Amino acid sequence: MTQTQFDVLTIGNAIVDVITTVDEAFVAREKLVKGSMNLIDEARAEQLYSVMGPAVEISGGSAGNTAAGVASFGGKAAYFGKVKQDQLGAIYDHDMKSIGVHFATPKASDGPATARSFILVTPDGERTMNTYLGACVNLSTADVDKAVVEAAQVTYMEGYLWDKPEAKEAFRLAAKIARAAGRLTSITLSDSFCVERHRDSFLDLIKGSIDIVFANESEIKTLYKTQNFDGAVDAIHRDCPLAVLTRSEKGSLVVKGQERIVVPAHPVNAVVDVTGAGDLFAAGFLFGHTRKLPLRQCANLGGLAAAEVISHTGARPEVNLLKLATTQGLI
Amino acid sequence: MTQTQFDVLTIGNAIVDVITTVDEAFVAREKLVKGSMNLIDEARAEQLYSVMGPAVEISGGSAGNTAAGVASFGGKAAYFGKVKQDQLGAIYDHDMKSIGVHFATPKASDGPATARSFILVTPDGERTMNTYLGACVNLSTADVDKAVVEAAQVTYMEGYLWDKPEAKEAFRLAAKIARAAGRLTSITLSDSFCVERHRDSFLDLIKGSIDIVFANESEIKTLYKTQNFDGAVDAIHRDCPLAVLTRSEKGSLVVKGQERIVVPAHPVNAVVDVTGAGDLFAAGFLFGHTRKLPLRQCANLGGLAAAEVISHTGARPEVNLLKLATTQGLI
Repeated sequence: MTQTQFDVLTIGNAIVDVITTVDEAFVAREKLVKGSMNLIDEARAEQLYSVMGPAVEISGGSAGNTAAGVASFGGKAAYFGKVKQDQLGAIYDHDMKSIGVHFATPKASDGPATARSFILVTPDGERTMNTYLGACVNLSTADVDKAVVEAAQVTYMEGYLWDKPEAKEAFRLAAKIARAAGRLTSITLSDSFCVERHRDSFLDLIKGSIDIVFANESEIKTLYKTQNFDGAVDAIHRDCPLAVLTRSEKGSLVVKGQERIVVPAHPVNAVVDVTGAGDLFAAGFLFGHTRKLPLRQCANLGGLAAAEVISHTGARPEVNLLKLATTQGLI
Repeated sequence: MTQTQFDVLTIGNAIVDVITTVDEAFVAREKLVKGSMNLIDEARAEQLYSVMGPAVEISGGSAGNTAAGVASFGGKAAYFGKVKQDQLGAIYDHDMKSIGVHFATPKASDGPATARSFILVTPDGERTMNTYLGACVNLSTADVDKAVVEAAQVTYMEGYLWDKPEAKEAFRLAAKIARAAGRLTSITLSDSFCVERHRDSFLDLIKGSIDIVFANESEIKTLYKTQNFDGAVDAIHRDCPLAVLTRSEKGSLVVKGQERIVVPAHPVNAVVDVTGAGDLFAAGFLFGHTRKLPLRQCANLGGLAAAEVISHTGARPEVNLLKLATTQGLI
């Protein structure tokens, strides 16, 4: 295997987060399930925006957040995602490149605008996402830069891509190229409703071509149609060489063959906004993994990054994660 | 005098803030004076953005922040400011209307993009602003809605408007209409470099047609070309019926004829980002003033709003200021 130019390549929906705080009544009035990610069309996006309070705009997108996290740890990250040539697209592009992430997916010159997700944060720090995919729907196999995939130790993809047929094909192609080059592949299941929508495809993919699966408790239970977490753990260990299961304040569980590593959550003073917790956990874990660190240490780095991101508004780190990890003796 | 529909109308440059954190070395390398507001052209905006780190976008603009503050106190606010029909313009529009601010200035359909200010926040919480005025340069007398000015108890304008001849005329026209309708006029001097650029015009305006002046220590000293704060206080009391002078951690001084009211600063746990401190002070003071509260109480409301806004990133309140003021026994 040749030397890798990138530690982690992530592929996902390139989305600008539009973050606002709401009360529980707002979530109920809009008939939303708290904590879920909902796909919305343009009309609903306009309607929801018209009843939302003032917001903050910040680059997001699950896999984009993970790439930002890897870069913050000092890892070499690359990203595939589609924005339009508009103001939000320029912001997204800047926010990626300014932290050293390789991001060269051609911008769409026409069609829908750069995607945005209206993120409603309730007083408990929980977030309900309402995503208008916009330009993301144009991500296709043409955007899979073979050389970049071959040059990355791990190619990590978000399950949300599965919601659009073309993105799904891009996802499959990237996994195939990575495998052929002897690289690792990884996926996050993204959201339990997403798993519900694509359960069978996800299972086929995981069994056939994924080395590392990330999921939270609700996603893994949904995948295996069970209320029993231990049952889901047994199932995933048969289907995938390495699974990393996050359990919010209960920490995480790393499942590798017969091995089970229980890792406590990193302490957090106050949970402000949980957006990005899973994305940053994956960033810390994957960074550690590309550095050949022990699995427990990888999970601790994931927990640290997740704790940092939920302590403030926005889904990308506000501090240098490498410095933070060093200060805390985790690296 | 007829009943007023609005408590406070504010007029200013409608700007989206692009906020990032930098170290002191960055400010030095870019040859900036820390704490200042610099006007930049499009080329410099592009160059600066290309070397800046990832940012957060949030609606700003001095007088826009003041309108948002008045609304947060439960006051009826209106705003005149020019954005373009683009994505940032839509965001600005939303952020105003969603908090109940009357904002109906027609958007520019062509010409430069919606204005943005690259705000560089150093570790001490100080901010250095770099403003590309964009569509703001098209604010003109045609945008001064006479009915709104006549319907507002106070028309408040930012000194920054003086940087463009057409905006300056809009500013003058609004002051004239307000005076003719028996309403109050108010101005903030905005920035000591701005005062330096427009000293004589500012003095003429204040002497002739302004009821309430807001300035910080450095601005008022620059206005009267003195290093002596007490001397500047003496001068402003001769030129304007009511002056409100803010002095950062030293609090504020209200100057009304021979009366001098010294008001201590509101305590702040940690200064995160001073952007908007003066704007929110003006919001609190003006809100109190329109409610006929004693001047000391007006200044305390100003101090409270300033303390809230500097305790987080961004120049608009993150909590309901009326509720905050009530909780703290200030209303």
